[in-house]
Amino acid sequence: MMRTRPLKVALLGCGVVGSEVARIMTTQADDLAARIGAPVELAGIAVRRPGRVRAGVPADLLTTDATALVKRGDLDVVVEVIGGIEPVRTLITTAFEHGASVVSANKALLAADGAALHAKAAEHGVDLYYEAAVAGAIPLLRPLRESLAGDRVNRVLGIVNGTTNFILDRMDGTGAGYSEALDEATALGYAEADPTADVEGFDAAAKAAILAGIAFHTRVTIDDVHREGLTEVTAADIASARKMGCTVKLLAICERTPDGRSVTARVHPAMIPLSHPLASVREAYNAVFVEAEAAGRLMFYGPGAGGAPTASAVLGDLVAACRNKLAGVTGAGESAYTQLPVSPMGDVVTRYHISLDVADKPGVLAQVATVFAEHDVSIDTVRQQSRIQGGDETAVEQAGPRREGGEASLVVVTHRAPDAALSATVGSLRKLDTVRGVASIMRVEGE
Amino acid sequence: MMRTRPLKVALLGCGVVGSEVARIMTTQADDLAARIGAPVELAGIAVRRPGRVRAGVPADLLTTDATALVKRGDLDVVVEVIGGIEPVRTLITTAFEHGASVVSANKALLAADGAALHAKAAEHGVDLYYEAAVAGAIPLLRPLRESLAGDRVNRVLGIVNGTTNFILDRMDGTGAGYSEALDEATALGYAEADPTADVEGFDAAAKAAILAGIAFHTRVTIDDVHREGLTEVTAADIASARKMGCTVKLLAICERTPDGRSVTARVHPAMIPLSHPLASVREAYNAVFVEAEAAGRLMFYGPGAGGAPTASAVLGDLVAACRNKLAGVTGAGESAYTQLPVSPMGDVVTRYHISLDVADKPGVLAQVATVFAEHDVSIDTVRQQSRIQGGDETAVEQAGPRREGGEASLVVVTHRAPDAALSATVGSLRKLDTVRGVASIMRVEGE
Repeated sequence: MMRTRPLKVALLGCGVVGSEVARIMTTQADDLAARIGAPVELAGIAVRRPGRVRAGVPADLLTTDATALVKRGDLDVVVEVIGGIEPVRTLITTAFEHGASVVSANKALLAADGAALHAKAAEHGVDLYYEAAVAGAIPLLRPLRESLAGDRVNRVLGIVNGTTNFILDRMDGTGAGYSEALDEATALGYAEADPTADVEGFDAAAKAAILAGIAFHTRVTIDDVHREGLTEVTAADIASARKMGCTVKLLAICERTPDGRSVTARVHPAMIPLSHPLASVREAYNAVFVEAEAAGRLMFYGPGAGGAPTASAVLGDLVAACRNKLAGVTGAGESAYTQLPVSPMGDVVTRYHISLDVADKPGVLAQVATVFAEHDVSIDTVRQQSRIQGGDETAVEQAGPRREGGEASLVVVTHRAPDAALSATVGSLRKLDTVRGVASIMRVEGE
Repeated sequence: MMRTRPLKVALLGCGVVGSEVARIMTTQADDLAARIGAPVELAGIAVRRPGRVRAGVPADLLTTDATALVKRGDLDVVVEVIGGIEPVRTLITTAFEHGASVVSANKALLAADGAALHAKAAEHGVDLYYEAAVAGAIPLLRPLRESLAGDRVNRVLGIVNGTTNFILDRMDGTGAGYSEALDEATALGYAEADPTADVEGFDAAAKAAILAGIAFHTRVTIDDVHREGLTEVTAADIASARKMGCTVKLLAICERTPDGRSVTARVHPAMIPLSHPLASVREAYNAVFVEAEAAGRLMFYGPGAGGAPTASAVLGDLVAACRNKLAGVTGAGESAYTQLPVSPMGDVVTRYHISLDVADKPGVLAQVATVFAEHDVSIDTVRQQSRIQGGDETAVEQAGPRREGGEASLVVVTHRAPDAALSATVGSLRKLDTVRGVASIMRVEGE
């Protein structure tokens, strides 16, 4: 069974993930050969700075000319761990044109332009795999694409960004504010110097687009994903969540709409009950809940980032791509046959936790309740919440807001309603003289 | 891409799982065809009692002659959901000989004779898939085999039997004894009329054998798996676990030995810390922890049994087998290249919680401690534990056992030690005049 000619693999990028991939390919060469059915050989590594010392990476394989590398024509698989859109898109396309399958960890590119890349791969009869692009080491895309291929996925609900989970976990655990928790994440290496991609939800939105596309067999790009980051989550929001028996997580949520005719994809902070398995996902771990019609509720949990975990996912794909090359076939590619449209955020139906600063005078609750009713948003509970440190709190289901120097605070939790109706409600609330401000709006999920 | 000739599938067995498979194949035929690339047709269903009404199952496809069905020669895939060793082994072998791939949910057969079946499938150039045999709907075997193909798995630790998890969850939650909890499980349909296979650990041991084989690329049969059921777990054990911040679970544990030269596989009740993710797996759910060198700690969670969840796993395999048939290839088959031997239970190294009934007189603790020392088993803590309801408890690290009508109870928790050393220790303890009895021995895992 073992061929003499080894399979040739090129590596684009040799940072934290790339050097780990190179290391494992060298140290576990025998295992990989046994699993593939032929030895696998590192043919070249494209880097920007060849002078940088990389432990365990053969220096004679380094090149700065990535284009020449992918044009060699004798490569079986190209592993791309550079990231970003260009020049990577051109490099991957060139690799396809020269007969190589591609294993990528590039969520941004796949979420922006996955359909065109899949079409190009199919045109040239090669594979495009990217398990590492979503939730690091957690096997997620292959199970969704293959293990659940005979089932119908209705919902994917996940924590897919470790940085923001670390920040929220610290805020929840210590009572720290956002900035303080972000500083700790940066100091510990969980957040980058410029944390924008993580904290504004861009990273999670790219992953949501990829997950929605695979789960629902349709095409979803990052532009289709409603996105809210966590920079406006306050210690007060976390405390409010606790009072409801919830915690706050930055969730990626992909759903079929109830009529099954479209899908939605969104990323935003949300309250989830402490009893939900996602609530106990701590620190920088990732976890993804999948709800399928026959399988029921599944959860996949593990490290969502890091050199070694991401390399594990890359190597799993590499073995699959190499096996296919040996057999002269391609694996299950993109499946977009349902062609379901992506509905806007306004169509999403969920529950809401709204915190209002209101004037302290009679009739305010009645006014507020009327606005909700006018927009057909049904109220579950109303609570008065003190903003004074150490102040206590009173449920005011039928009473008015608490009097306190002319200002009080109302927390309204709704039943399920369309996001558009909630937005309209909030718009009307802002116009009330008695509403001084809308302190926060947060969705409530996982119930 | 869509072929005109449909792929032909035969179903062996039409009970809870089989009828769900038939139903989904009919109702979701278009989805399946889109995912496979060709329509898939149910060609026949072998049953024992064709007269039994099966909702949604076409009566004209039923036959009692399973052998004739698998010998038709025009089948692409045979789905086997009968269970047991014979006549299933012969039917599967006959299906291979007539060119059909096989999808099976049969843990007993795979754990007893997987190697021979894989060899037979390879000989005839067809696939043998059995995701449904372990942990029901949870995608586990495919991720282990494919997603982690470039990684090295060191440990698999899981709750793979829903019946026993339900029983232990009830004992933990209500303080009920084993019999009472079993009665409740039976009444609710979680336990069969004859619960032996579940409560004695045979079911979990078969799954452990399959998991160990795939995780470590070697051959493990159910005879290699050390097995202890949960029939001797008492309410006192559960209470003792709580006092240690633990709960009791029936675990399947497959490990590489520390030197990497062999593997072990075992099923037994064990205490695990409440902080471990497996501790919060409730009711009849399954969950499996996988520890891999690069990926780190992964967990897979979901329903481990039931008609629809098991059908989901069967159909995922069916899609894969059909895709391979269309492409004229076979998927990743058995991988047993490491040929690691299976070490006996005595070589397993873990911690132990031992509960002793001892005479209430001076010097007993010294005697007991000496026996542990003689066998090189290091003691972590010693506690006196009252057996009187409502009695309190005192840590006696340096004191003797509590005096109480001539009898006392000692709980010893050890550091990590080989199972053989612990067994020898217990043998010697039993010979001491002052030790009236060994009330329970339980391993402590997941730390």
